[in-house]
Amino acid sequence: MLTILDTTLRDGALAEGIDLTIEDKLRVTPLIDSLGVQYLEGGWPLVFERDLEFFRRAGEELQLGAKLTVFGATRRPETLVTRDRGMALLLESGAPVVHLYGKVWTLHVEKVLGTTREENLAMLRDSVSMMKGEGREVIFTAEHFFDGFRADREYALANLHAAVEAGADILSLGDSNGASLPDLVQEGVRAALGIATGRTVGLHLHNDLGLALGNTIAGLSAGATHVQGTVNGYAARSGITDLTALLPILKLKMGVDVVTDAQLARLSSVARKVAEIVGLGDEMDHKPVVGRKVFSHKTQTHVAAVLSAPEAYEAIAPESVGNQRRLLLPGLTRPTYLAEVARTYGVDLSVSSAANANILAVLKGLEDQGYTYEDASASLELRLAHLTGSATATLAVERLRLFEVIRGANQTVVEASLRVRVGADSVYVAAEGAEPLETLYLVLVAALQAVPDTRERGTAMRFLGARVRNLGRGKVRVVATLGDGEREWTTVGIDRDLVKAAWTSLLDGVEYGLSGLQGQTVVSP
Amino acid sequence: MLTILDTTLRDGALAEGIDLTIEDKLRVTPLIDSLGVQYLEGGWPLVFERDLEFFRRAGEELQLGAKLTVFGATRRPETLVTRDRGMALLLESGAPVVHLYGKVWTLHVEKVLGTTREENLAMLRDSVSMMKGEGREVIFTAEHFFDGFRADREYALANLHAAVEAGADILSLGDSNGASLPDLVQEGVRAALGIATGRTVGLHLHNDLGLALGNTIAGLSAGATHVQGTVNGYAARSGITDLTALLPILKLKMGVDVVTDAQLARLSSVARKVAEIVGLGDEMDHKPVVGRKVFSHKTQTHVAAVLSAPEAYEAIAPESVGNQRRLLLPGLTRPTYLAEVARTYGVDLSVSSAANANILAVLKGLEDQGYTYEDASASLELRLAHLTGSATATLAVERLRLFEVIRGANQTVVEASLRVRVGADSVYVAAEGAEPLETLYLVLVAALQAVPDTRERGTAMRFLGARVRNLGRGKVRVVATLGDGEREWTTVGIDRDLVKAAWTSLLDGVEYGLSGLQGQTVVSP
Repeated sequence: MLTILDTTLRDGALAEGIDLTIEDKLRVTPLIDSLGVQYLEGGWPLVFERDLEFFRRAGEELQLGAKLTVFGATRRPETLVTRDRGMALLLESGAPVVHLYGKVWTLHVEKVLGTTREENLAMLRDSVSMMKGEGREVIFTAEHFFDGFRADREYALANLHAAVEAGADILSLGDSNGASLPDLVQEGVRAALGIATGRTVGLHLHNDLGLALGNTIAGLSAGATHVQGTVNGYAARSGITDLTALLPILKLKMGVDVVTDAQLARLSSVARKVAEIVGLGDEMDHKPVVGRKVFSHKTQTHVAAVLSAPEAYEAIAPESVGNQRRLLLPGLTRPTYLAEVARTYGVDLSVSSAANANILAVLKGLEDQGYTYEDASASLELRLAHLTGSATATLAVERLRLFEVIRGANQTVVEASLRVRVGADSVYVAAEGAEPLETLYLVLVAALQAVPDTRERGTAMRFLGARVRNLGRGKVRVVATLGDGEREWTTVGIDRDLVKAAWTSLLDGVEYGLSGLQGQTVVSP
Repeated sequence: MLTILDTTLRDGALAEGIDLTIEDKLRVTPLIDSLGVQYLEGGWPLVFERDLEFFRRAGEELQLGAKLTVFGATRRPETLVTRDRGMALLLESGAPVVHLYGKVWTLHVEKVLGTTREENLAMLRDSVSMMKGEGREVIFTAEHFFDGFRADREYALANLHAAVEAGADILSLGDSNGASLPDLVQEGVRAALGIATGRTVGLHLHNDLGLALGNTIAGLSAGATHVQGTVNGYAARSGITDLTALLPILKLKMGVDVVTDAQLARLSSVARKVAEIVGLGDEMDHKPVVGRKVFSHKTQTHVAAVLSAPEAYEAIAPESVGNQRRLLLPGLTRPTYLAEVARTYGVDLSVSSAANANILAVLKGLEDQGYTYEDASASLELRLAHLTGSATATLAVERLRLFEVIRGANQTVVEASLRVRVGADSVYVAAEGAEPLETLYLVLVAALQAVPDTRERGTAMRFLGARVRNLGRGKVRVVATLGDGEREWTTVGIDRDLVKAAWTSLLDGVEYGLSGLQGQTVVSP
C-alpha cells in the first residue's frame, strides 16, 4: 500500500517568497486534505515556533482525514534526549505522527554537526525510541541519504539499521540536495529494502536538477512505497516531488489507487487555490497537469487532431484532474470552444442565430485582447449575463478622475472623483485612499452609497485585493477580488494602462456584486 | 558523441502566450548559439510562413556555430513529393538540416491523417529520400513513437526501418504527448537501436506529466545519443526537455562534455534573457538550476551548513551555471552575503567601519522591503554609488502630481506635473502621455530638458518598457528598462502603491542614465 506525505506547510514554507501565517496554513490544510493524502506535515516547531499554534488550532478547528505530522531533527549531540528542546516541542505539538530527520552523510555529521559518527547514531536511536515510547508513529528521513550512500555506503546504511532497531515505522530516503540521478536512487532504494526488514521505505527527493519526479518514479519502480512531496512542488530552493503531477501518474498511468477519482478531479482547483494563498499564482500557467495553459492547442494541425481524437495530443483527459482543454486557433474552431465555456454558465450558443453570432463575436474580440477567465470567472459570467440580457448593467461611467500627489519620500495623497449614472440617478462623488487601486474602489462604493437602491449592497462589499501581471506586448492584466462577507468573486481587466486595467476589473467586480449572479463564483474550500 | 538540438524557436513558439516576431527570433538565436548546441531549429514554414524570412535574415545577419535546422511534416498523403508545398518550403528555407516528422502511431495515421499505413510509410520514404537527394542532413522524428510502440510495435518500428533505408541521419523518438514513463522510454530506445544500424537514435520528449527530463536521462542511459529540447523547457502545452537543466546534468553529473565550462557558465544569463524576450520572465524564480531563488537558503540550519560546506545543500556550484547563492536569514549571516554582492561592484564592505555598517543597514532595510536586484542591477549599483559617495543624486523631487481622466470607453487623458531640483536649478514641468508609466517617464525627461547640464542626456534617453509583478502581501514590484541607444539598464521599485513603485523605478532609471555608471549593466547577447 503506497502512502503519501504532503509537506507543503513545512518544506514548502522553506521556498523563498513563501511566508505562511497561521491563518494561511489553516486555509491550505483542508484543501490538501481533500486530495486524500495519508500524512499532512504541518510544521517544524524548533525553527518556526508559531507552528505550535498551528497544531493546536488545527486539532481544535479542523476535521482531517490525513494524519497530522510534525517535523524535527533528532536530538542535539551530547544532550540527554529528555532535555532536548526539539524533542519537547515535537511532543508538545500533539501530532500523532513524528517525522524525524537525521544526518547520514559523513560530510554533514562531521563538518555541519561537528560530532562523531557514533554519537550521531546514538542521537538517532534515542530520538526514535523516545517518540515510539510516547506512542507516536515515527517516520525517519535519512537526510542526504543518496549523497551519504555514495560517500560511505556502510555508514549510511548503519543509520537505517539503527532506525529499524529503534522502531521507526517508515524509513524515508532523502535526496536532500536533489543532486542524484535515477540509477543511484534505484540502487539506494534496493539497498535500504535489504535492511528494512518489513518496514516501509520512502522517498524525499528534491528538485535542484529538475529530476524530483523522474527520480520518484525510478524509486517506486525499485520498491519504495512511501512518497513525500508538496502541492505544485513547493519546497526549499527549486522544490521537491510535485504531488500534483505524481498523483495522476500513479492513478492514471501506473494503476495505483492512491486517491479516488473524485479526489483526483479536485487536483487543478486545489493546486490553483494553494498557489493563490501562498502568493505564487502567477507561476501556475505552464505547470504540468494542473496549469492553466497545459491542455491548450495552438496550430491547425494540433487543433484538428484533438477534435477528432483527444488522445492524439493529450497525455491524460483534462477533466480527470479538473483541468480544461483550450483551443487557441482563431477561426472556425474557436466558437466551438467558446460555446463550451458558455454552456458551463447555462448559455447555449450552439444554436445558430444572430444573437448568438453577436455574443461569439464579442467574446472572441475579448479573447483577442488577451482576456481569459480561469481566475476571474465573475467577469465572464457578467459578460454573458449582459450579452444574453439576463442581467443589465447598473453603472454607466461618465467621467473618472484619479489624482495622485507624491511629496518627498512619504507624503502621498491619492484621490478620485467620479461622475456616474447608478440606475436612473446621476451622481458625483469623491474618495481618498492609501493607493490608487483602493481609491478607485472607494469612489465606486461612494457612488453606490449615494443612491438608495444600491446603498445596502455597496456598504456590504469589500475590496479584498488585486493581482497584477504582465501579459507581454506591453499589456497588463489586473485581477481584483471583492467579497461581501459570504462570498468572494474575482474579475479581470486588461490594458496597456495599469489604471484602466484596474478600473475595468473593479467596475466588473462592483457590477457583479450588484447583479445577484451566483454562477460558479462561490469560493469553497 | 552526444548532440543537442534546440527547438525554442519552433516547439517553444507553440506554447500559449509565446508569440515571437522575427526580430525576437533574431535576438534569441545568438543567445542559444552561445550555449554550444549542435542544431538550432529556427522554424516551421508551413505553419508560420514568416519563418522563411527568419531563415533568410539569420543566414545573412548571424554567424552561428550551430547548424540551422528547419522543421516540417513528411509529404501529404496522395501527393507527389515534388509537388508538395511543405517540401518546397523546407528547401526554400535554405537550412542545411531538415527535421522531418512523420506519424508512426496507428491512431494518428488512421484517425488524424486519414490515410493507410502503407501510404504513410511511402510518405516517409519519399520525403527523406528527396531531402537527402538535395544534400540535406536529415533528422527524422517519429511523432508519438512511444504511444505507437505500445499500440502496434511492429508498425512503429517499420517506420524507423523505412527512415533508415531512405537515408535519415538521426532517428528521433517522440513522446509527443508526454504520456510515457521511463521504463517504456528505455524499452523503446533499445528497440530502435536494434534497427538503427549505426544511425543515431535521439529523444524528443514532452513534459505533460512533468517527466520530460527524467525520461531523457532514462533514454540516454538506454543508449540514445541525441536530445531535442528548449531553453527553460518552453514548448507546446507544458513543455519539453529543459536544456537549462539537462546541460548541467550532462556536464557536471554524467561527465559528458557536451558544452564547455565557459558555455555552461552563461546558462543562467541566457535562460533569463530568453525568458524576458519571450515574455515569461515572471516564471523564472523557481526554475531548477537557472532560477533566481534556487540557490537561496532560508533557515539557520541551512545557512550555517552552506557557509561551512556549500555542497551540504547545493546540488552543483551556482557559479558553474552562472547563478548565485543567496542567504536569506536575517541577522548575523546576512551582511556576509550583502558584502559579497557589493564586492561585484567594487565596494569592499568587509572592513568594519561606521560607514560600512551604515551601508549594510540601508541594504538590509531595502531587502526587508522585498528589494532584490537580479533583474535590476542598475538600482543596486546606483544605491552603492550614492552610499559610498562615488556618485551624487542629481534629482531631488519636491512634488509629483499624476492625473488621469477616463471618459466613456476610449477617451483617456493622462498628465503629470513635477516640481524638482535638477542640480542647482528648481524647475516645474508637465507632460502628457498615453498611460501613467510613460507619462511619469516623460515628465522626468521634461525636467532634464529644462536644465542645460542635463538636456543632452535627457534627450538621448528612452523608456523601453516596464514589468509589473505581485510580491505577495499586497506589494507590487515594477522593473523599468531605460536605454540611450548604446546601452540598456534596468531599475526596480517596490510599494503597495503601483504608481509609487513605478515612480521609484523610473527615478532610479533616469538617475542611473545621468550618473555615468557603467557597472554590470551593459546588455550583451
